[in-house]
Amino acid sequence: MASSDVTIFICISCTAEGARVEKPGRALFDAVTAAADGKDGCTVKPVDCLAVCKRPCTIALSGEGKWTYVVGDLSPDTHAGDIVAAAVSYGASSNGIIPWRERPQAFRKGVISRIPPLSFKAEEQALTDRDDSTHRLRLG
Amino acid sequence: MASSDVTIFICISCTAEGARVEKPGRALFDAVTAAADGKDGCTVKPVDCLAVCKRPCTIALSGEGKWTYVVGDLSPDTHAGDIVAAAVSYGASSNGIIPWRERPQAFRKGVISRIPPLSFKAEEQALTDRDDSTHRLRLG
Repeated sequence: MASSDVTIFICISCTAEGARVEKPGRALFDAVTAAADGKDGCTVKPVDCLAVCKRPCTIALSGEGKWTYVVGDLSPDTHAGDIVAAAVSYGASSNGIIPWRERPQAFRKGVISRIPPLSFKAEEQALTDRDDSTHRLRLG
Repeated sequence: MASSDVTIFICISCTAEGARVEKPGRALFDAVTAAADGKDGCTVKPVDCLAVCKRPCTIALSGEGKWTYVVGDLSPDTHAGDIVAAAVSYGASSNGIIPWRERPQAFRKGVISRIPPLSFKAEEQALTDRDDSTHRLRLG
């Protein structure tokens, strides 16, 4: 059974050329932690490396029984609010797939990967596809 | 408690320029399914899109309570055996992090992302890092 809880993993090792701070990943973690304050069911966890590296800053949204989304190209200066809003939508979703209209622009363009939950069955895919415009866009 | 079971998710939509077949992702799924035949605890599941797209073919290794690894740049012609060998090592690991010496070359170079399990606590990171040379290499 899918839970309404959501975990935001944030890579605190991400560095970026031209960034205002030396550790933008750490700054993003601090900004998102502040923005998520008071949001029920929303947990923010620092991770030392999500192994994306080439598209900083990077986060992942995970929840019990749901698709995990890895998203990159995020900035601590502009995206903390978007990340928390997306996390709230993720928590409210049944499967982790955020409806396209609720997806911040950064999430529409920045998806690095998505991974099904262990409980995933291939025959559920048809429903998944209807919900996920990212999929349709990417496959043309 | 981490399980010895491992699930190999394979993106069956992956296409690749110059590939021998029209749907190399589907061919990779077929090849890995054949190679995994008889491997206890190893499940192969097709997924219509892992949203990596730019580095076909793409798979993910997942297991209960373990880090998930997304790996790209894989070929149905050469990598099915490597993928199953890596999956067996993954299943035998306590946390999903395959010891460097057991990691096929394709897995050393092809990591797209890694995501902690929901149970991850930041203080476990020190142990994680010692096990994962990918991390050290990437961070220089």
